[in-house]
Formats: sequence, C-alpha cells, structure tokens
Amino acid sequence: MSPDIETLIQKISRLPGLGPRSARRIVIHLIRNRERSMEPLLTSMDNVYKNVKVCPICSNIDAFLETCSICSNKKRRKDLICIVENVADLWALERTSCFNGQYHVLKGLLSSLDGQGPEVLELEKLWKRCEENNVEEIIIALSATVEGQTTDHYIKNFFKDKNVKITSLAHGIPIGGELDYLDDGTLFAAFSARG
Amino acid sequence: MSPDIETLIQKISRLPGLGPRSARRIVIHLIRNRERSMEPLLTSMDNVYKNVKVCPICSNIDAFLETCSICSNKKRRKDLICIVENVADLWALERTSCFNGQYHVLKGLLSSLDGQGPEVLELEKLWKRCEENNVEEIIIALSATVEGQTTDHYIKNFFKDKNVKITSLAHGIPIGGELDYLDDGTLFAAFSARG
Repeated sequence: MSPDIETLIQKISRLPGLGPRSARRIVIHLIRNRERSMEPLLTSMDNVYKNVKVCPICSNIDAFLETCSICSNKKRRKDLICIVENVADLWALERTSCFNGQYHVLKGLLSSLDGQGPEVLELEKLWKRCEENNVEEIIIALSATVEGQTTDHYIKNFFKDKNVKITSLAHGIPIGGELDYLDDGTLFAAFSARG
Repeated sequence: MSPDIETLIQKISRLPGLGPRSARRIVIHLIRNRERSMEPLLTSMDNVYKNVKVCPICSNIDAFLETCSICSNKKRRKDLICIVENVADLWALERTSCFNGQYHVLKGLLSSLDGQGPEVLELEKLWKRCEENNVEEIIIALSATVEGQTTDHYIKNFFKDKNVKITSLAHGIPIGGELDYLDDGTLFAAFSARG
C-alpha cells in the first residue's frame, strides 16, 4: 500500500467513532470518487480550516471576524446566559429555538478521572461577563450524568452569594416516553418535581 | 451554525458508514484540534488527491507514474493473476503475504439488483493480459456471498474453453472456528471438500 494512502487511513482512523476498518472503507470511497467526493470534501475542509475559529467570548465555534454570530447578534438577549458542555449541545439547543440568549461553552466537565478541575469551567471569565452585561439569569444545561450533575452543583455553589439567578434544566419523563419503561431515577425525579 | 461548518458536516456525513451525528462529532473534534488533527488530515488528503491514481492494468489504487507498485514489481510473478472484488480485499490478501502474483480488481460484482452486468468484470481486458503474459493460473478470490459466487461462476464459464487454469478460494471451517457454532452451509462445504 502506498505510504500516502497509509498515512491518510491512519489519520482518519484516529477521528472519534472511527477505526482502521472504517477508515480504509472511507479512503477507498474517496479515491474511487475523486471528483464527486474527495475534491468537495477537501475544499470544504480547507474553508473551515481557514475561516472557523473559537469565539473569545463564549467559546462557540463559528466563522467570524471578532465574535461569533450568536454573540454579535443584536436581537439576542445579553442578560441571559446558558452554560453548555460543548458545541454539539449548543447546536442541539439552537435547533429547538427555545432560547434567545447567549452561551457559555465549557472546555469540559469536572472529572477527577480525566483530571479536569474547575479551570475548564472558566467561571471567573463568566462572572466578569455577567457583571459587564447585568446578566439576570444563568441557565445550566448539562447532561444528567454524574459529571454533568457534579459540575452543575459546583457552578451553583460558585454563584451562590452573587447577585444572579441560577437555574438548571428540568428532569422528568421524556416526551413520548412510557412510564413502564422509565428507570427508577427518572420516575422519582418526575414525581418529586410534579406541578 | 456557520455555512462552512454545515457544508463540511454534510460532506462528511455522506461518507460510507457515517451519518449526521457522527459527522458532527468529527467536525467538532477537527475544529477543536486544528493543529493536531485538521492540519495533518488536510495535508495527507491533499497528498492522496494529488498522487494516488487507479492503475490502468489492474485497477489497484496507488501512487505511481505508469503502473502501480504491484504491476511494476519485477519480483512478482506475471503468470499468476488473482481476481478480487475491490482494493480492500487486495490489501487483505497482501497482509497475509500468501500471494506473489498480480491482481485484477473488479469494478463490482454481477448484481441484477444494482443493475451491474458483465461489463464491470472487464474480462476481455483480463484475457488480453493473460495472452500477453502467458498466464498459467487465474485465482478467483471473491466473497462467499450470492453475488460473489454468481460472479465466480460467470468468470469460470468465460474462461472455460480458454487455455488457462481457473481456481477459487477453498470453502471450509475458519481457523479457530468451532464446529458447533458453524452454519449448515459451511459445515456441508467443509465436509464435501474434505481431504
């Protein structure tokens, strides 16, 4: 096998969710469809490489000059900030169009296993931003996993004595979910938070 | 979401084995690891795009000037040709180093469902090559699926009256396989071909 092909397979196999076998399949597909698949992919990846950056305010990724399209959008409320774990979660929230404020994307969650301490949350930076923009409410939108909930508690504790309202996403029965199939934890949470 | 990112996600999600969710994950990983992941991937894909072609003799893919490294390798036997379905199968055979001849990579298998007729096999081209190089034996190394075996029969029939030996890979118990777990077809084939 040519070293060029071998290197490309190796690089692709290191992407999240892929392995050597799927990387081989992808590379063969790319070479067999040079014009239809490899060329547009190369151009498009090159565009992203040149244009897309991490926003200095909220850590969203976007193509922009100074700040990302959400931070520079004048129609969005500046006094409402939603904390998300990563950009995929930000995109998921944007797809629902339920939120019209701004974001604070974390660099990771608190995790003693991965050696991630409070510095990945950048809470001092967030608090400075809150003071500058008179933020009314911070919404914590983290996954209901152990790491997510630990981080949720830590953030709540950090803002406890500060003059800003802190809320978290509600726990309960997912829409379309059947009671019988729910785990006990969810059912308990839904029951406790009834209203 | 920036249109650049959206286009890249769309392009990646069309690769074999991927979908919109895995493509999103890959794109976020690439942007977050610009220097460590996206830049080397871009360079490597660009190299493949510029250097790698389909060999005019055997349809292998490789970086070459006139013919691929297998066809131009003087140490390999020219009178032995192995027919494989695609380049992944060629690489699999090369990894075992059990074969020291040359290849004929098919453009596909006979399949009435996919509308692929005998033209994808390029047997006339293969026969011309056999005559030019006094080929002794053609080894058909196709998968033991319906399409693979139909193609196997068709190729055998094509070369029936021609002066060349045609063989196929043996069917039987895979190495490490337990009798009790084998399907009936394999067990029957292994029993019939005992020796």
